[in-house]
Amino acid sequence: MVDNQEKAGGTFGLAVAQVGGIQPSESKAEVVERLTGLLRDAAARGADFVVFPELTLTTFFPRYWVDDNSGMDANYETSMPNDDVAPLFAAGRDLGVGFYLGYAELTPAGRRYNSSVTVDKEGAITGKYRKVHLPGHDDNRATLRSQHLEKKYFEVGDLGFGVFPTDGLNIGMALCNDRRWPEVYRALSLQGADLVVLGYNTPMEVPGWQEEPHAKMATHLLSLQAGAYQNSVWVAAAAKCGYEDGVYMIGGSAIVAPSGEIVAKAMTDGDEVVVAQVDLDMARPFRESVFDFAAHRRPEHYAILVERTGRGEPIPLPAGALD
Amino acid sequence: MVDNQEKAGGTFGLAVAQVGGIQPSESKAEVVERLTGLLRDAAARGADFVVFPELTLTTFFPRYWVDDNSGMDANYETSMPNDDVAPLFAAGRDLGVGFYLGYAELTPAGRRYNSSVTVDKEGAITGKYRKVHLPGHDDNRATLRSQHLEKKYFEVGDLGFGVFPTDGLNIGMALCNDRRWPEVYRALSLQGADLVVLGYNTPMEVPGWQEEPHAKMATHLLSLQAGAYQNSVWVAAAAKCGYEDGVYMIGGSAIVAPSGEIVAKAMTDGDEVVVAQVDLDMARPFRESVFDFAAHRRPEHYAILVERTGRGEPIPLPAGALD
Repeated sequence: MVDNQEKAGGTFGLAVAQVGGIQPSESKAEVVERLTGLLRDAAARGADFVVFPELTLTTFFPRYWVDDNSGMDANYETSMPNDDVAPLFAAGRDLGVGFYLGYAELTPAGRRYNSSVTVDKEGAITGKYRKVHLPGHDDNRATLRSQHLEKKYFEVGDLGFGVFPTDGLNIGMALCNDRRWPEVYRALSLQGADLVVLGYNTPMEVPGWQEEPHAKMATHLLSLQAGAYQNSVWVAAAAKCGYEDGVYMIGGSAIVAPSGEIVAKAMTDGDEVVVAQVDLDMARPFRESVFDFAAHRRPEHYAILVERTGRGEPIPLPAGALD
Repeated sequence: MVDNQEKAGGTFGLAVAQVGGIQPSESKAEVVERLTGLLRDAAARGADFVVFPELTLTTFFPRYWVDDNSGMDANYETSMPNDDVAPLFAAGRDLGVGFYLGYAELTPAGRRYNSSVTVDKEGAITGKYRKVHLPGHDDNRATLRSQHLEKKYFEVGDLGFGVFPTDGLNIGMALCNDRRWPEVYRALSLQGADLVVLGYNTPMEVPGWQEEPHAKMATHLLSLQAGAYQNSVWVAAAAKCGYEDGVYMIGGSAIVAPSGEIVAKAMTDGDEVVVAQVDLDMARPFRESVFDFAAHRRPEHYAILVERTGRGEPIPLPAGALD
């Protein structure tokens, strides 16, 4: 873990590069050219680290049904980096800027994951994450305008939640739906995360998920803010958003401080870079008081969080407790 | 657990009875008279269940140092109900209204807890909770205007987090600082809670806890909203607030829906009742989609939540994971 005591008083430039809709017709070379432009924009505005979205290199293909998953192979990366993304890695190295990038991964063994990597300012991959909380379904619901087939196209990640020292930052990774699960931020903060980064593709309409449009944005931001505050970490979240093949996804890319306050937020639903000067020391008063985990957490009372998966019956009080 | 399928389409009246400052000079009889008036007010406005604050019967005595804790014995209840609170229990029974009440508990064995009970509309105690997340310190910091000595005056609760069927509701209990810890709502929703109730005393200034006044209110509401949304439960929180013996505590008592939206909120820092008509079925679309715990939670990746208490080192990836 990086010793941030040495960085006391210092700040760094944190950017979120929101990406507008990517149509099925766009090539990865075209997409990477867009991403490289956003990286240059962020660097020019003082960014030392840039957060890109989930499944950044293609349209959100889990909205489409195919009988055989191999019909989607062109959307997966079989190595990282590779020739398609080389210009992005080169630009980061030239500019001295690290980044987080989400993409679909197909392993040599034929396993499919919704993955992300952290890359340092030298262009070296410092960490990898495979998405754990896959939303949606794996059956064909052909009557829907847009399906949400992440459970068909990806396996549950097998690497757990990890924190990766990168250019002096302890960075924890998550992806999309993970941001709504408090267990994720907790697992990362317990590993010393200073910053949690994540990308997302959040369609306005998800089957069975009844939220008004304003609530869709509110619960997205609520989840980021609660994760940041309750874990004394910075959070940076990047959307792929706007229309993709006629389906709308929300924007709202944001940087949130350990106070739970939003300090930067995208205001469009297209390509947009937001940057904040981030002071890691802002987390310190929270970690040393209300959220001094070592002083206040009580894991002996949390067993049910790992012993149960779904909702169940109440655990009765010991006999006589109400006497 | 109550089968709420039978209540489909029905609503009930949920009230929060916020209580203004209680001075050290006030007798418990006077306080209970105030509480009984608030209960009558709530009942007249359609309430079936009323949430009172934490340590409702006395001033927030953990702000004072005494060398021997027994010097504070008059602030503790040695039985519940007892003669002092009998008028409140009688009023609830007469009006057919249940309630939640926080108080300091001194057991026959001499143990001290920050406790709460649920009481049904017949006046019977249906559940009990002893606060787990005790904030503050146990040493004398005499130079402070107000100390926060919960770790001195109370032991960590020994009953865990419980859900108690009460008048057709599955009610989970928490107290004050518990509301900032996502583990609490999760432990309750995994036991089938429909509603989480809690009382709080939140001084504007806590030693070492650096928040601006606006942030103090924002993080309070953020914690309630995230807990409600991420667990598909209703949350009702009651403040003891305003000035007590020269020390100011925030109001902001609120009722939050499973959508994360605040549906009722106190606007004063004194005695005030807010009521909402609550539809338990509003939780259903969330529980059946994004927060279908059985379908989406992954406890195999949450072990660190119970294996670690404080922040520690990152867990390395398996060898070769970055190749």
